[in-house]
Amino acid sequence: VQDDFYAVIPAGGSGTRLWPLSRTSNPKFLHPLTGTDRSLLQATFDRLAPLVTAGRVYVVTGAAHADAVAQQLPELPAENLLVEPSPRDSCAAIALATEIISLRAPGAVVGSFAADHLINDVAAFHATVRAAVDCARQGQLMTIGITPSRPETGYGYLECGDPTAIASPGAPAPQQVLAFREKPSVDVATEYLKSGHHLWNAGMFVWRADAFLDQLRQRRPDVAEPVHRIAAAWDGASRDAVLSAVWPTVPKVAVEYAVMEPASLDGLVSTVPGDFGWSDIGDFETVGALFGHDQDSVTVVGDGSVVSLDSDGVIVVPSEGRLVALLDVHDLVVVDTPDAVVVCRRDRVQDVKRLTELLRERGRDDCV
Amino acid sequence: VQDDFYAVIPAGGSGTRLWPLSRTSNPKFLHPLTGTDRSLLQATFDRLAPLVTAGRVYVVTGAAHADAVAQQLPELPAENLLVEPSPRDSCAAIALATEIISLRAPGAVVGSFAADHLINDVAAFHATVRAAVDCARQGQLMTIGITPSRPETGYGYLECGDPTAIASPGAPAPQQVLAFREKPSVDVATEYLKSGHHLWNAGMFVWRADAFLDQLRQRRPDVAEPVHRIAAAWDGASRDAVLSAVWPTVPKVAVEYAVMEPASLDGLVSTVPGDFGWSDIGDFETVGALFGHDQDSVTVVGDGSVVSLDSDGVIVVPSEGRLVALLDVHDLVVVDTPDAVVVCRRDRVQDVKRLTELLRERGRDDCV
Repeated sequence: VQDDFYAVIPAGGSGTRLWPLSRTSNPKFLHPLTGTDRSLLQATFDRLAPLVTAGRVYVVTGAAHADAVAQQLPELPAENLLVEPSPRDSCAAIALATEIISLRAPGAVVGSFAADHLINDVAAFHATVRAAVDCARQGQLMTIGITPSRPETGYGYLECGDPTAIASPGAPAPQQVLAFREKPSVDVATEYLKSGHHLWNAGMFVWRADAFLDQLRQRRPDVAEPVHRIAAAWDGASRDAVLSAVWPTVPKVAVEYAVMEPASLDGLVSTVPGDFGWSDIGDFETVGALFGHDQDSVTVVGDGSVVSLDSDGVIVVPSEGRLVALLDVHDLVVVDTPDAVVVCRRDRVQDVKRLTELLRERGRDDCV
Repeated sequence: VQDDFYAVIPAGGSGTRLWPLSRTSNPKFLHPLTGTDRSLLQATFDRLAPLVTAGRVYVVTGAAHADAVAQQLPELPAENLLVEPSPRDSCAAIALATEIISLRAPGAVVGSFAADHLINDVAAFHATVRAAVDCARQGQLMTIGITPSRPETGYGYLECGDPTAIASPGAPAPQQVLAFREKPSVDVATEYLKSGHHLWNAGMFVWRADAFLDQLRQRRPDVAEPVHRIAAAWDGASRDAVLSAVWPTVPKVAVEYAVMEPASLDGLVSTVPGDFGWSDIGDFETVGALFGHDQDSVTVVGDGSVVSLDSDGVIVVPSEGRLVALLDVHDLVVVDTPDAVVVCRRDRVQDVKRLTELLRERGRDDCV
């Protein structure tokens, strides 16, 4: 890819569906949930290296995690670590990074890549991103859609038009995105899978900075204006003052909802379908599928100690130096950590975050 | 009770049905499973105090627990702590204590009281024991039978004759024990409950030392002979030598099976029915029933932290400083400790010991 390409890694969110493994103080992107000793964030950074030098990678993260991010990514220039004083959702984070990059490097093409995804076929990923950068340079707001492999109800979908003629080498041809679709029911997801016109929205975007900022100004001036003030002050003496005064006023909204969905209705959004073994490490079902091994008819993640009798269908994430023992239990998820253990019906893994909400209600923020 | 009465507390067994709370290295009788800060052993000692001075209480325990027992019972004379080099089941332990007491105090009446039972009505317990001592003095081998309150399948039963005329004040009249019955099916247990002639065998015995030792010699000379050699050497210089040479040869057998059952068939065993709120802290079902409190539709034992959502029928024993979180799980037992957590189907609590067996098979004795 060329020197005008910049990568943004939004490293926010505490991964409450992976609680108690993922904590507010130690969120999932800092964990080595990659099958190696690299964290999800480091794996994301490594994966981008062939596309973009470290000097053109930006990370947006919360104040609580800035030190950990800097420690995990020593190659990242300090001025490319953008620290949010508080979480204001993805539109604010991505818009701020896009505008700062645009001010420092006019004409930049910016890609945004979540810090908590896994990708098997890195070469195919690179080809897909290159194709998306090519299209983005023409002014389209690009998403990277994932070719669905199952009727997944946990993701949003992109409804696409027919492939265009302008294919890049080694990657599928781009398709226009006709609409963004919410997480579907299983029946609808099955139709989507059959249709051949629906891709998973993986939350990866590529755009020319000016094209995105133009759309943001048109569609959400209430976001664009404060973000612009902050970005303009970022590399000057008033950064802290402006940031602390203005950042809390930025509306909390997802970038899909604020910009991409409305822009898609005006024909301004396209996608390059990706088929590179993508996983969103979103819940313990995924963690079990990717990193678990079978032992005594249950799925054990990692090297911890598990003993199991007359049990099956259980995903166990044991904690180092502790033992998890199961007797005649079925279809559960058991996640053990040094200070908390969760026992959850397996088909409720998506709702583990509700336990964190309950803990907060009860003043047990220390556990979350 | 008179000065000829001595109490033996066999403090053996590792309580594997209460694993991982109870460990080989820290068995249940050392735990404060009493609703107070006294351990089960201490509670047993306290309960006997009005019947027998500390100088006439004996504890039989394993080498691994001798120090802990001495520490928990500072009033116990050192010479009354009988340490088994290895576990040889209840007949060996009780016979050794009975014979040592008999040699030190000829004519003694000896009562044996397990270290891991709880009793609500201590006054009724005392009256029952006094009545049993009165009968024992006449030469009968006495058991204390518990008036059943439910069709319990987890205990053995005593099948009894009609009450005799010789009642002691404040206690039911003694009854002859016609037979010992094994743990019954639920149908049989229901019949037993209806019959009015069946009591739970609580494993509490009272006998004149000479009467018991005479029966032991007749029925199990293979036990009586080595135990006699050890007891004769106990208060002399050769104790350690004889103990280490002879103890390992004592057959492992329960005192019920070796002596009481056969003696009952010859009309030598009687019982005083006890109705004093007796509990055998045998498994987590009992622990939950006795010490649990309701919280979010689950039963929580102790002061630890539990958070629960959409769950019921769960007994949770949390560990101090750790959190147990439940989501949509039912009819489980979850026991958390500093180094191990067990998740067990609730109607399998009796089989928790099988997990300890499995751990031993796998060389994980460190966890047991």
